[in-house]
Amino acid sequence: MDKNSAKKKGIHLLELLLKRKSGFLSGAEMSAALGITRAALWKRINALRGKGFVIEASKGKGYKLVSTPDLSAEEIKTSVKGTLGKEVIFLRRVNSTNDLAMKLAEKGAPEGTVVIADSQRKGKGRLGRKWHSPPNANIYMSVILKPNILPKDATLLTLVSAVSCASALKELTGVDVRIKWPNDLVVSDKKLGGILLEMRSEPDRILFAVIGIGINVNMKLTDFPADIRTFATSIFKETRKKHKRTTLVAGILNEMDGKLKILKKTPEVILNEWRRLSSTLGRNVKVTSGKETFIGLAVDIDEEGRLILKTPDGSVRTISSGDLTVLREHTAVQ
Amino acid sequence: MDKNSAKKKGIHLLELLLKRKSGFLSGAEMSAALGITRAALWKRINALRGKGFVIEASKGKGYKLVSTPDLSAEEIKTSVKGTLGKEVIFLRRVNSTNDLAMKLAEKGAPEGTVVIADSQRKGKGRLGRKWHSPPNANIYMSVILKPNILPKDATLLTLVSAVSCASALKELTGVDVRIKWPNDLVVSDKKLGGILLEMRSEPDRILFAVIGIGINVNMKLTDFPADIRTFATSIFKETRKKHKRTTLVAGILNEMDGKLKILKKTPEVILNEWRRLSSTLGRNVKVTSGKETFIGLAVDIDEEGRLILKTPDGSVRTISSGDLTVLREHTAVQ
Repeated sequence: MDKNSAKKKGIHLLELLLKRKSGFLSGAEMSAALGITRAALWKRINALRGKGFVIEASKGKGYKLVSTPDLSAEEIKTSVKGTLGKEVIFLRRVNSTNDLAMKLAEKGAPEGTVVIADSQRKGKGRLGRKWHSPPNANIYMSVILKPNILPKDATLLTLVSAVSCASALKELTGVDVRIKWPNDLVVSDKKLGGILLEMRSEPDRILFAVIGIGINVNMKLTDFPADIRTFATSIFKETRKKHKRTTLVAGILNEMDGKLKILKKTPEVILNEWRRLSSTLGRNVKVTSGKETFIGLAVDIDEEGRLILKTPDGSVRTISSGDLTVLREHTAVQ
Repeated sequence: MDKNSAKKKGIHLLELLLKRKSGFLSGAEMSAALGITRAALWKRINALRGKGFVIEASKGKGYKLVSTPDLSAEEIKTSVKGTLGKEVIFLRRVNSTNDLAMKLAEKGAPEGTVVIADSQRKGKGRLGRKWHSPPNANIYMSVILKPNILPKDATLLTLVSAVSCASALKELTGVDVRIKWPNDLVVSDKKLGGILLEMRSEPDRILFAVIGIGINVNMKLTDFPADIRTFATSIFKETRKKHKRTTLVAGILNEMDGKLKILKKTPEVILNEWRRLSSTLGRNVKVTSGKETFIGLAVDIDEEGRLILKTPDGSVRTISSGDLTVLREHTAVQ
């Protein structure tokens, strides 16, 4: 196979190594498959080693992949099936993955480009709040989308992302991840993660959107700042096991890829999944939206993702955004 | 007055010259007022001359402002009364004033910063369409806003800008400028200008918005490309007179400044002004929105600026955005 056809078929060194899981792969075979010289192959092997991949070399037998690092752009790229994650920018440390993704989108980065970082200096939550982003533990990633929807429907992107994260995490770790309206991932009402949607738009079109996803994966309880320790959790805390971030990231991206396609055709399917995974509906809540505060029973979300609240006086309020607190179960509001 | 207090009071050389309209101002007096040396004054006088200001110097009498250029940042800054236009970036030629303003806002440029250009290489209209932007004739400017409103209300910014442009142009030139929903300035149904709103937002807040304003001022009919000549007009074409762009720009900015304050407190006042200036309401129109086309009588706009259409079958449609054509009066649609 010559170099061009290898490139066209998108065959990468890591894919070759991953396919031949337990055995050795000869240098000659690999050079041929990739359409490169033995010297170039050697360089690429070493580049991967520099990124934390452990590759055994044995004279006469060739190369064997012993282990992959916890987080790498290369393994994410080879693990995704759709558009999301085909391009991955991985950085040890960044101010904010969302800010960088917005800048790259501004410069024309294609849909599905993912920015992921091991840690963030200025991790952001909704409304400019801080997102605690220590290294070597969690997922901080941002996905560039160019969705053909109206700005008024943008909240649907938050919902579809939350549904994708909750589903993928449940499948891969067994943790019962739920969604707190509008954009939090929770486990037994403790915060596991969040979604931050930012976009550039005109009134009648979204030029691009960036979905920021932060998930506490391998953090220990003691690593949380004291003030949020009681309200937060991590996959590690829930399972007592460390989880490989690359696997979770790829799982989430694949799930999002599929669900974004469903959103285009049948948004009600996504809304129903959201309802099923919600930790909010059917409970008494307090919502602060700008200067207003509403208390009531969260009865549903509408087709734009707005929360429908039944207030104690029997009236119905539709709230497009805000901070929600679940009230203690014995607080009677109606 | 020392230099600092002169700076604090914001007294500028141009202001001094403009105040003393018809007489001379002595160099000593000016140096003292600005808190600078005679040599520094001389430098500044020459800098203004380089920008097209004609300043007469007479031995013993001092300086006299003879004329100001058609368009300059300095004169806009001294002519505005509020926040809008206190910072002005004027460029001979730019790709797009909106793109530059978005970049500057991204970097923290303050609210009210105005980007204005004599010509644009890639002038933009709605939905990425081209905006014809030849030099030495028209207004192409973008205003950075940081409005404390929800993204769903963003269209109100387009409406308030259109109302401000129409009012200011009418007052300063006498032309009966009307507004075609959602964002066109028209005279007798011919296109005089347009508003392009872009923003960066999260679902529940606008981080910043940029209002792009394009107005055909001194263009002649023959300067228009042949394909748009029949549908377009300019202030010059309507009045047979050239108009100073700086005056119009400052007039629009002052009008917008006032109306944005009104919008905050009593948005219905702005909606009513829009209704009064509308060329759309009460007429039979065709609106193309995405893949859908609606025909009907434009009866009103709602509190978010959406067009309310009464269709021939008697039903009512609310349209948030689209391309509108006024149907010929004898086309009966209901």
